[in-house]
Amino acid sequence: MIIDALQPTADDRFTFGLWTVGNPGSDPFGLAVRASMTPTHIVAKLAECGAWGVNLHDNDLVPFGASAAERDAIVSEFKAALKVHGMVVPMATTNLFSHPCFKDGAFTADDPRVRAFALRKAMDGIDLGAELGAATYVFWGGREGTEVDASRDPRTAIGRMRDAIDFLCDYVKDRGYAMRFALEAKPNEPRGDLYLATTGHMLHFISTLRNEAMVGVNPEVAHETMAGLSMTHAVGQAMEAGKLFHIDLNGQKAGRFDQDLRFGSEDLKQAFLLVRLLEGSAGGARYDGPRHFDAHAYRTEDEDGVWEFARGCMRTYKLLAARAAAFDADPEVQDLIAERTDPQLDPLLADYSPQKAAALRAVTLDPEAIGQRGLQRERLDQIMTEYLLGAR
Amino acid sequence: MIIDALQPTADDRFTFGLWTVGNPGSDPFGLAVRASMTPTHIVAKLAECGAWGVNLHDNDLVPFGASAAERDAIVSEFKAALKVHGMVVPMATTNLFSHPCFKDGAFTADDPRVRAFALRKAMDGIDLGAELGAATYVFWGGREGTEVDASRDPRTAIGRMRDAIDFLCDYVKDRGYAMRFALEAKPNEPRGDLYLATTGHMLHFISTLRNEAMVGVNPEVAHETMAGLSMTHAVGQAMEAGKLFHIDLNGQKAGRFDQDLRFGSEDLKQAFLLVRLLEGSAGGARYDGPRHFDAHAYRTEDEDGVWEFARGCMRTYKLLAARAAAFDADPEVQDLIAERTDPQLDPLLADYSPQKAAALRAVTLDPEAIGQRGLQRERLDQIMTEYLLGAR
Amino acid sequence: MIIDALQPTADDRFTFGLWTVGNPGSDPFGLAVRASMTPTHIVAKLAECGAWGVNLHDNDLVPFGASAAERDAIVSEFKAALKVHGMVVPMATTNLFSHPCFKDGAFTADDPRVRAFALRKAMDGIDLGAELGAATYVFWGGREGTEVDASRDPRTAIGRMRDAIDFLCDYVKDRGYAMRFALEAKPNEPRGDLYLATTGHMLHFISTLRNEAMVGVNPEVAHETMAGLSMTHAVGQAMEAGKLFHIDLNGQKAGRFDQDLRFGSEDLKQAFLLVRLLEGSAGGARYDGPRHFDAHAYRTEDEDGVWEFARGCMRTYKLLAARAAAFDADPEVQDLIAERTDPQLDPLLADYSPQKAAALRAVTLDPEAIGQRGLQRERLDQIMTEYLLGAR
Amino acid sequence: MIIDALQPTADDRFTFGLWTVGNPGSDPFGLAVRASMTPTHIVAKLAECGAWGVNLHDNDLVPFGASAAERDAIVSEFKAALKVHGMVVPMATTNLFSHPCFKDGAFTADDPRVRAFALRKAMDGIDLGAELGAATYVFWGGREGTEVDASRDPRTAIGRMRDAIDFLCDYVKDRGYAMRFALEAKPNEPRGDLYLATTGHMLHFISTLRNEAMVGVNPEVAHETMAGLSMTHAVGQAMEAGKLFHIDLNGQKAGRFDQDLRFGSEDLKQAFLLVRLLEGSAGGARYDGPRHFDAHAYRTEDEDGVWEFARGCMRTYKLLAARAAAFDADPEVQDLIAERTDPQLDPLLADYSPQKAAALRAVTLDPEAIGQRGLQRERLDQIMTEYLLGAR
Repeated sequence: MIIDALQPTADDRFTFGLWTVGNPGSDPFGLAVRASMTPTHIVAKLAECGAWGVNLHDNDLVPFGASAAERDAIVSEFKAALKVHGMVVPMATTNLFSHPCFKDGAFTADDPRVRAFALRKAMDGIDLGAELGAATYVFWGGREGTEVDASRDPRTAIGRMRDAIDFLCDYVKDRGYAMRFALEAKPNEPRGDLYLATTGHMLHFISTLRNEAMVGVNPEVAHETMAGLSMTHAVGQAMEAGKLFHIDLNGQKAGRFDQDLRFGSEDLKQAFLLVRLLEGSAGGARYDGPRHFDAHAYRTEDEDGVWEFARGCMRTYKLLAARAAAFDADPEVQDLIAERTDPQLDPLLADYSPQKAAALRAVTLDPEAIGQRGLQRERLDQIMTEYLLGAR
Repeated sequence: MIIDALQPTADDRFTFGLWTVGNPGSDPFGLAVRASMTPTHIVAKLAECGAWGVNLHDNDLVPFGASAAERDAIVSEFKAALKVHGMVVPMATTNLFSHPCFKDGAFTADDPRVRAFALRKAMDGIDLGAELGAATYVFWGGREGTEVDASRDPRTAIGRMRDAIDFLCDYVKDRGYAMRFALEAKPNEPRGDLYLATTGHMLHFISTLRNEAMVGVNPEVAHETMAGLSMTHAVGQAMEAGKLFHIDLNGQKAGRFDQDLRFGSEDLKQAFLLVRLLEGSAGGARYDGPRHFDAHAYRTEDEDGVWEFARGCMRTYKLLAARAAAFDADPEVQDLIAERTDPQLDPLLADYSPQKAAALRAVTLDPEAIGQRGLQRERLDQIMTEYLLGAR
Repeated sequence: MIIDALQPTADDRFTFGLWTVGNPGSDPFGLAVRASMTPTHIVAKLAECGAWGVNLHDNDLVPFGASAAERDAIVSEFKAALKVHGMVVPMATTNLFSHPCFKDGAFTADDPRVRAFALRKAMDGIDLGAELGAATYVFWGGREGTEVDASRDPRTAIGRMRDAIDFLCDYVKDRGYAMRFALEAKPNEPRGDLYLATTGHMLHFISTLRNEAMVGVNPEVAHETMAGLSMTHAVGQAMEAGKLFHIDLNGQKAGRFDQDLRFGSEDLKQAFLLVRLLEGSAGGARYDGPRHFDAHAYRTEDEDGVWEFARGCMRTYKLLAARAAAFDADPEVQDLIAERTDPQLDPLLADYSPQKAAALRAVTLDPEAIGQRGLQRERLDQIMTEYLLGAR
Repeated sequence: MIIDALQPTADDRFTFGLWTVGNPGSDPFGLAVRASMTPTHIVAKLAECGAWGVNLHDNDLVPFGASAAERDAIVSEFKAALKVHGMVVPMATTNLFSHPCFKDGAFTADDPRVRAFALRKAMDGIDLGAELGAATYVFWGGREGTEVDASRDPRTAIGRMRDAIDFLCDYVKDRGYAMRFALEAKPNEPRGDLYLATTGHMLHFISTLRNEAMVGVNPEVAHETMAGLSMTHAVGQAMEAGKLFHIDLNGQKAGRFDQDLRFGSEDLKQAFLLVRLLEGSAGGARYDGPRHFDAHAYRTEDEDGVWEFARGCMRTYKLLAARAAAFDADPEVQDLIAERTDPQLDPLLADYSPQKAAALRAVTLDPEAIGQRGLQRERLDQIMTEYLLGAR
């Protein structure tokens, strides 16, 4: 029964990037193992797999340095393919990391020419995204960091980043694009340390923008996990602040290189908790943006393996969503996680007044007795494990 | 010459906690190895070592559950000792983690009785801090986290934390205390995952408070380093936002348990970069708050070793400050890190206008040529290494 | 159906330590949350939960410094309880880490008096283990490490460790005990760095013993995972060498403090792979030693939560074993993992001869064609994920 | 004074790989930033910088697929350059990781054709190394691992690795080459998990070879540090076993991607401890093999930056060696680390006899008194820190 329900639909809002399924499998120690695929081929195959949309960096579609005529021809062909296959482009972004000119950053680079070139490239990328209908524009600052911190005051870097993002927000407004920005954090790699290293740092940075309202975050499972942080907590903090504008789903082991594995292939418990949060089965609104799989197939795979990978990401997401819904519908679970209320105390715990302070000081509380109550978390977690394993 | 200058002075604003030098050396696998020291003894010895101030949790001084009369007698004796030894109490904090009643959190606990008790204990701790003259009150949420994320929505936890901090801000205002709050993040331990896991997450949380102005951060070297993040970047982000209200200095290896080692005993490069940032030798105002060593002596030490440890923290800090000053005074360094300016481009890189966008698009930029320029970072880092090693 | 089969039996050889279910829940930041349980109570409750055996440190049963008469009375009462409840003691070990005299190591300590006391304590512990029928004696060197590597040459430490283990092997032989040793590695905590940090280092150390034959390893999930290493690979290497003498099962996130969580509560994929290896469903003999859960309940739990925890460890193990068996029985899986053979090449790939070298050089091999073959690992891993999730 | 002594000499045995200084600076997110350099140019420049030797993979010198005539011409030109510049080739190795045919391993690959091709390539590489005079042949199994552990039993992989190494040992003997093997471990990257993940695992593997005597290890700072393990302890274990045949020096932060930074640019304390061990200033024989810098310049650098990098590696090594020698010559240090002896106990602590056991049990030992003695490790470590910083 569950199995029959695993076929993706448009309502799932599953997306992949051209750079994800199109990844040819080179790495720091090895050459490409798969031939390049054309963007139009990727669109056709993703549609066949059941994806709803496809995302892209400017240079995934239009080669660096292409002429305006080449660009237009490519875009035109791509739009035709989208139409044929019923696919959308919900998100676009700029490649500000591959070219040697970005070797020490783009928006935070010390060389004003690099910052100028980066702004210009981002404006062009935004135009491209707008033309393709992207409602979200992502910024991942792949080179915005250092190995040699003596070279640049981190405050200078943050200031430059703020100038750039605010500049581009105003550009979007000036053009009248219906587009929001989603900023993506990463702790390290390819730079020794990247500025604004986690979703938390990024959320704070956003709070300092002039154009705060149109900027949110794009948390990525792999990036938070590399630092050993809880993706669920990061996404929860972003949702609570109304700032979850996009999400990057994949798999990763903590404390190592950026793996970008198939969603659900690592840490199934964290994946379950994340899907449960996004789907809202335990409460709160369902996240209504794209579920973007920013991952790629193992280097052991040929093209068939790439489409196995893509289908696997979507199947596991749907399976986890079904398991989360069943877990949250279980009366024992509902009982275990029901909010404890106290009519006397609850009104005293927010919105200070001297009267509340006095009342708090007057109430009788027995910390020893409170401390002895068992909280049944082993039972709750074991039930969750058994739902996850399909054994309950 | 440098050596003679290593004696600490009041201007250094070096502080230790009662719980740091007073740590008896128990750990998850072993019993205490040192006898307890009285708070007044610690004050006397820290003064002898050259420290400027001493910090405390409420229960470092006043035992949990002490009567008002006992409390007053203890505080009175402690204040007398401070006066005799010329020591100040710049910071105080609440122990909201040791007692079993806090086993599932304090401000974020599910049980309203725990939240009420935590608020009350914090109010009392604030009163104690105010009485001792503490200008900074630190909150470290040692139990504000989970092992079982199914049990509590992270959004609920953040909301509860906000209610508590805003409540206590208003309490401070109501009492007329000249006190600011400094929030301290930690990724994990003793809980599986702690909410608001890094200084970045905490800075964002602060931006959502009603009383944002009176709340800043207390970054800790060990806590940022446990997650493999750059302490220098975190402190830079806090300083840029005007939110560095306090700092916890110690030593830590990445990716392991909270070690709280002697300052400078691990990652001397990061320690150098941090001291350089705090002392302002490369630019920016000098951080004017306490330099708090939140560390403790190895378990191999007796009491003599504890004071060696305390002197070592301060000596290494001063040594690194001297090395940073020398590095920044070196003309070759100044040349290597001088800001690159471009009269044509600089005005185009902030504060968007359609004219600037057009000008940016019109300017001639050669990314290939820009990418070929070497940035001399190996030279800069090697010079820094040699200053650090005292070889230049 | 699977569910009915989850009740533990003696054939499962599930064991717990007195120190695991008996853990009162103190940690570096908090006091005990649960009352102590007597060893006999633990025996009764573990039997009720379905465990086969119970393991112990000397001081879990007999307090440090107890007289011979006290010891004998305690042991006698304990043996009676074992008999009543049909429980065995398959493993015993020595506490060489809690007492302050071991603060800088036991067998590797610089003070000869500590090394002498440690040997003596271990001999007594071995006698206790033998009396209780333990066939395996574990050594975990909780304090065998350093924070200050200048203090002791690591070669000296290894030499001392070798002397101690060989000494104790000979003691066992001299006494005629039917007992083998299992050495347990850990990378760090409570010491900064522990000697012989992983199962790999320990296997090598064992290869240098005079009494190599009677010494194997006791790999622990949490300890290998703390360093981000593959438990499956470590156990595989130990099994290949005939050295898997015992195993410690629990849960842990990489790159943090030693968590000792309920088995299966973290990294279900790795837990599946480990159980599959131990149960031999994919080939190789089934591991025939105890399945020891070296874990403890969350600090949020009361005693009821402890027994939930214990039952959960065993249920999840059995569930994973059933899932692994189903996975390995799947014809598609069998096809995907079948060994590829090549009658011409296979004989040339081991046991060198000049003729084989010449034949290898003469054979036609096309690396380009070989490199293009897809290996269907995405499919295999997705099938495994779906078996794990009970969806296939 | 120290500074004058930093010029490298042949006695220092400093080496670099063609692939290290020749690294063009591409990474997973960016293109090459530096032009390729010819091997002969590298030889000339390394000689100018003061290096003693140059190491290489087969394909660093001879392109994959070159004809015998091409190969001979290249080798001949290279040997001429070595002679002109007075450089030696102390170590060579095989590239068994770049080509797509090795995407799932070389010696451990499932496809017998890959294993055959890998053996043949290694034989050819050994011939090349022998021709160039290399006394050490390194094996780093860059692809010997998995992402999908269901695909291959780790025992099978270890067996295949053993067959391959023993085969190639016999090949070396058969050819009469004066060559030893050095095996290099790495925990992960580029594969999810690599077999034989640390120097400890590799030392054990070596103990299981038929040709154990001619095989040792090549520990690498970055690889041990990635897993958060102590390089000093790993090298100490290898030296104690007579198995330190080669060493790879560089810099790395724990818990992240393989950085291969300039030696001494990270964790100066660990670098000091390592150099101290290799140079033997605290006791034990000086390591007499090459000091190989397996690192590369930051991607921000042009060719000038590469030679700054190379000079920096050697300068920092020599500086640390001088500092270690001074530290070990300090009488206070010598006193602090002097071995404690006990004429009564020392003979009882090794080489068991029933008499020794009885004597141990009879001796009076007071664990409380022993536990109270302070070990002055804070003082020792602070002195070391100050030597390291050149302040003492």
